This record gives sequence, structure tokens and C-alpha cells, in this order.
Amino acid sequence: MNDVLARCRLLAEATEEPGFITRTFLSEPMHAVHAHLRGWMERAGMSVFTDHAGNLRGLYPSARASSPRLFIGSHLDTVPRAGAFDGVLGVVLGVALIERLDGRRLPFEIEVIGFSEEEGVRFGLPFIGSRALIGDIDDQLLTMIADAIGAFGLVPSRIDEARAADDALGYLEFHIEQGPVLESLDLPLGVVETISGQNRLALLFEGQANHAGTTPMNLRQDALAGAAEWIGAVEREARAVAGAVATVGRVNVSPGASNVIPGSVATSLDVRHAEDAVRHDLVTRLLRCAEQTAADRCLTVSWEQRLDQAAVAMDSILVQMLERAVASSGRPVHRMSSGAGHDAMIVARRMPAAMLFLRSPGGISHHPDESVLAEDVAAALEVGERFLRELEQRHA
Amino acid sequence: MNDVLARCRLLAEATEEPGFITRTFLSEPMHAVHAHLRGWMERAGMSVFTDHAGNLRGLYPSARASSPRLFIGSHLDTVPRAGAFDGVLGVVLGVALIERLDGRRLPFEIEVIGFSEEEGVRFGLPFIGSRALIGDIDDQLLTMIADAIGAFGLVPSRIDEARAADDALGYLEFHIEQGPVLESLDLPLGVVETISGQNRLALLFEGQANHAGTTPMNLRQDALAGAAEWIGAVEREARAVAGAVATVGRVNVSPGASNVIPGSVATSLDVRHAEDAVRHDLVTRLLRCAEQTAADRCLTVSWEQRLDQAAVAMDSILVQMLERAVASSGRPVHRMSSGAGHDAMIVARRMPAAMLFLRSPGGISHHPDESVLAEDVAAALEVGERFLRELEQRHA
Repeated sequence: MNDVLARCRLLAEATEEPGFITRTFLSEPMHAVHAHLRGWMERAGMSVFTDHAGNLRGLYPSARASSPRLFIGSHLDTVPRAGAFDGVLGVVLGVALIERLDGRRLPFEIEVIGFSEEEGVRFGLPFIGSRALIGDIDDQLLTMIADAIGAFGLVPSRIDEARAADDALGYLEFHIEQGPVLESLDLPLGVVETISGQNRLALLFEGQANHAGTTPMNLRQDALAGAAEWIGAVEREARAVAGAVATVGRVNVSPGASNVIPGSVATSLDVRHAEDAVRHDLVTRLLRCAEQTAADRCLTVSWEQRLDQAAVAMDSILVQMLERAVASSGRPVHRMSSGAGHDAMIVARRMPAAMLFLRSPGGISHHPDESVLAEDVAAALEVGERFLRELEQRHA
Repeated sequence: MNDVLARCRLLAEATEEPGFITRTFLSEPMHAVHAHLRGWMERAGMSVFTDHAGNLRGLYPSARASSPRLFIGSHLDTVPRAGAFDGVLGVVLGVALIERLDGRRLPFEIEVIGFSEEEGVRFGLPFIGSRALIGDIDDQLLTMIADAIGAFGLVPSRIDEARAADDALGYLEFHIEQGPVLESLDLPLGVVETISGQNRLALLFEGQANHAGTTPMNLRQDALAGAAEWIGAVEREARAVAGAVATVGRVNVSPGASNVIPGSVATSLDVRHAEDAVRHDLVTRLLRCAEQTAADRCLTVSWEQRLDQAAVAMDSILVQMLERAVASSGRPVHRMSSGAGHDAMIVARRMPAAMLFLRSPGGISHHPDESVLAEDVAAALEVGERFLRELEQRHA
């Protein structure tokens, strides 16, 4: 498992920004990442190619002539100034699992796939790599990314060839949790059962800007005081719903001077939950709170919905197989939902998908301090081996 | 009184920015303002000069050879995109009072003074005109403004000549309220008894930025949720103290992305009250609230004081004279404090000072919609006449 960490750190040296890890969709340093992975894959007995969406794909053949394919993968791009493990770890772990087979063939093919794009940094649109795998690249997206594909030495018009066959066995993704839950529970691993749905909204509270010295407290229409009261309600209401998170991350106060009562406040709202109905109820309640707060204070409030993304369930059979693999390895089984989006969410539209989370020390991710424990990597590898063994028995 | 409004509107045409009223310290359009006022003053029997701080000064002689001087005035500069009455009205009203004397001399001199600077826009320092009148221009300030003085055709080294004689009778300033209090009480006029003291502070709440999707509510250190709770406390505590105002006007959230839990929040705090001890108690309480909120939420909070300005009392004898003038004109007497700073606050350091506020429709000021009612101008003129009459009797 030390190999896995060392390999992730080696790949992290391929960056657009010296001193940081920044590697966006089909950027120059992606070539070096592909070269390293190709070498490891080929030495493990895999045949390697890059599809025309820029996904690196290594195929480990089956023991049988015609057999379905299991995909194991994650993404190779990063956010700006990222850590060394988000995405890359899942690909490197896939290769390590093939190496552990030591040349032994299974009754199914295994393809380790390194997606070219998940973070949405270069074109503002995430999941380009996994969308290509499920044949979901529309003409508009293709037009946007065609030059980048060509510049990487690939052929945009052949992007459809990236599409997986219809009889795929499934998709397995190892990923760091990027949150503090497993650490807080003192657990190395978590089995993802759902990727949470998400609403994003923009709200605008409007009152009356006025002189901070000459306007008595009882004659104010302070948009910030109203927004602050509502932010308190967002926190309180979200805490009251098990598994829900609600966040106000952005606040813009106008005019924003220390001696002027705020006339308007624009805020964001981000709400997530594993169950869509629970999430929608919570959003409705939070908007009602905003209206009530505004009415109580002679303010107005308006909003726009920017995103309403449904939750995506992982495949129940694969989830149970992962749970059995965790349990048989002697570790506690913990089911959880993922509050962040992942490639597995896209791939799940076309084949059974499952994810295994590895504990994130300090809950830190998207940051140079992002890390993963060697013992948790060892645990993930052992669970992966047990998972493959059960799959092998089922297909025997 | 229609003349007074028309004159203010005429002076408003002298602007640095066509379509708006913007006239900063010794800017080019100030020449036109001086020319108009000089004409009205000279026709009213006043001798006019500009001192070397750029204050326009018109002297109406006494009936007696050697007699003390009453100053009546306000400022001629504006904020950017101002209204037509803030400052200017007090100077134009002073001239109108001299006109109403119709050439009759009183047992004291009257100087109508139009201060060159009160708003602090051009050099970031307010009250340059009134500071010159009381001999409070230090070398640092003079160095800063010397070029502007020279460019206006004045002599910086002669700024000391602007200083008023030690035996001044007093200073009277008419000014729009710039707040909603008189309108809410249905009163045309208010007698200022104190100009509130003021604290300005900058606070910084610090928590831990984190992923909005992967960090459960109970594992967050959300700096904005803490700041919002405190903003609620600021409003609540200030409402509980009669006459106090406290304002959070500026909020900067970092990193400020909709899907990231705020790691730090910088806010301003502006606290004002007519009594310094009450204000200091309130500030102490608000800072304790901030500490308590931070402690409850595993955040830290720190602050810097940016301003601690004592309240300034108006002269009690002049205040009582104004009250008698209001009462004898048949109007309700209302004492109030000024939440904003004014030239009277500076001048009060050297001579008895008093202010009469005129109702601000809608409480609007520092805005093109700023206005004043003709009937309120008539009321102020009548009160001014009655004030001069009592002063005349006292000096008879």
C-alpha cells in the first residue's frame, strides 16, 4: 500500500502550476500521468488505450473468450491547488488490485479507467470523462471541448467510441471521503449507498439603505439583519433533519459601507440530502422562513433556483457485496451517503455502480494538505480483493 | 422660502459630474458656488472674502463699533452624487436671515460662513473648513491640502488667518436631519442638544472552510453562521438601549463560494449614542456577545477599534434660545441628538454652538432624491428670526 501512496505522489508532480497540484482536463501534464499509469498497467498485463474523450483505459482480459466487463476507476484531473489523492487514488488502487491478481484471470474482464475530467474546472462543466463513457456528450459540449481534444492528439469526432458496452458488469470507485465523518467515527472505510441530491439557490433580501447614525433602530429596514436572522434559521432547520446539510456560503452586502445600513443582501443557499423528498421539503421550509423573516421586517425577498439535482442510489447488490467485503475483512461496516458528486453518479445511469470511501484525515480535501492513511489504503485494497473474489464466485 | 429652495437648486448645478451633484473640497465648480453666494451676500449688505482654507465668509456689520460676532453657516462641499440641500441649505438660510433684516443692524456682527469641506471625500479627512475656523489645521493636514489650496488661487501659508476671534458670540447651523425621526413624529424642526459619540470597529470571525456537501452540520465551524448570530445580537442589544444605534454595514465572507462553508467573515461595527458611557457599555456588551458566540461555536473572534469619538454637547444657553424660538413660533419643541457628525461639532470646541434640524422627507440624504419642504424652510427662517431677536434683546 506504500506503493499506492508513492504512485499518487509521483503523479502529483505532473502539474500546470509549479509548487501546487493543478491539472485540468487534457492539460499538458496529463500526458505524463497517462505515461506513468500506462507503464504500471502494461506491466500488470493490461492492454492500454486512450479514448477520444481523453480517458485512459487499461483492460485486463478475462479467463473466458466473451465475458462482461467490470470497470474500476475515478478521475485524473484536479481542482486548482489540489491535494494528491482526490480522484487519482481510485485509479491507482484499481491498478494495484490488478497487480494483486498476479496474472490470474477472472471470469470477467476488468477495465481500470482514469477519467479525463470530473472537477469542471477548465470548461465549467464537470464529469466530461464519465459522460463520454455512458455516451452522454451532446453536440454543444463536444463543440466546446473539441479544440482541447485535438490539441491533446485525439479526434473529437470519434468521442462516441468511448461508450461502454451495454452488458457491463458494473462500476466500482474508490475515493477519499473529502469530509470528516469517517474520521469522527474512527472508521477507515465507508460504503456509499447514495449520492445526495442537491439544490442551489440565489436569494436577494431587499430593504432600505440608510445613514447608520441618523436612522433609529425602530425605523430601519436593514437587509443584513434580516438575512442574518434567516441564516440562523437555515442552520437550525438543517440541524433538525437527520443527514441534511444546508449552507450559506456567499453573502454580498450592498452598499457595503461601515456607516450605511445595508439596503440589499444577496446570498447563496446549498441544500443536500440523500432523499429527494426530504431535501425538497427542507428547501420549501427555508424559503418560507425567508419570506416570514422578510415580512416581519418590511423587507422583500426573492430567489432563483440554480440547480435541482436528484439523489443517485448506488446499486444495492454491489453495495451489499462491498459491505460483506468490509465485514469479512474484520472491519466495522458503515453505510453513508456522499454529499459531493462523483463519477459513480454519472456512470450509475448506464450500469450498476458502487463506491467505497476512504477516511480523509482532518476532513481535508481540495487543498495541498489532503491526505490518506497507509492503513486505510491497505484496508481498501483488502476489501477490493474480497469484493473481486465474491464476484468471481458469482460468475464461476 | 421659495427663494431658498431655488437658490439651493441653482448652486446644485455647480458639479464635477454632469447629471449629478458632486462637489468636493476646492474643486472647480466651487468657484461658481462662491460667485453666486458672494452676489447674494453683497446685495444684502455684507462684505465678502474667501479665507485661505477656502471658506466663503460674508460679514454683516454690527450697529456698534466693536462687538462680538455670531457665526451662521454650514458646508458647501458634497458627497459624490449628493442631494441639493446637505450643507448648502444652512449657508443659504444664513444669507436669507440677513436679507430679512432688510439693512437693520444688530448689536453684534453676523458672519455667514460657507465651509469649504465637511464630507471628507477629497482627502479622506472631514471638517477641513471648520477646523481652519478654530485654528486646528496641523502641518500634516496642511501639507496634504496645500496644492489644492494653491490651485484654487489661495495661499496655504496664510491658512491661520481663517481662525475666528476668541470673543465669538457663538455658532448656529441649520441642517437637514438626514434621518427619518422628525418625519416619523410629524415635526418640521428639531433642536439638536448633542452630537452622538461614535465607535467604529472591524471584527474578524474565523472558523474552518470546508466542503458544503461532505461536512455534516454538527462537525462545522461555520464563521458566517457565527457572525449571523452575532449580527442578531447587535440589533437586539442596540434596540434595548434608548437612543442607541448599532450597525453592521460591511460583511466579507471568505472564500465566498456557494458550495464552501465560510472559513472567515470580516464585519464592521458602528455604534453611536449621545452619552459616551452608555455607548462604551454597549460596545463592551457587543464584543462580549461576539466572544460568547465564537466560544459556543469553536470559532475565534478578534477586533480592532478604528474610531472612538466622544459625544459633543451643544451650548445649553443657545439650545434653550432655539427652543424658545420654536415654541414662540407656535410649533412643537423637540430636542434630539444628531447621529451624524456636523461642523457644529468642531466649532463647539472654540465657541458656543447650536444646530436646528429641518425634517428630511423619507429620511433621504446623500442621494439625488434628498429634499426639504418649503414649509419647513419657512419655519426655520421664522425660528432664526426669533433667535436673532432674543439675542438682540440680550445684547441691547
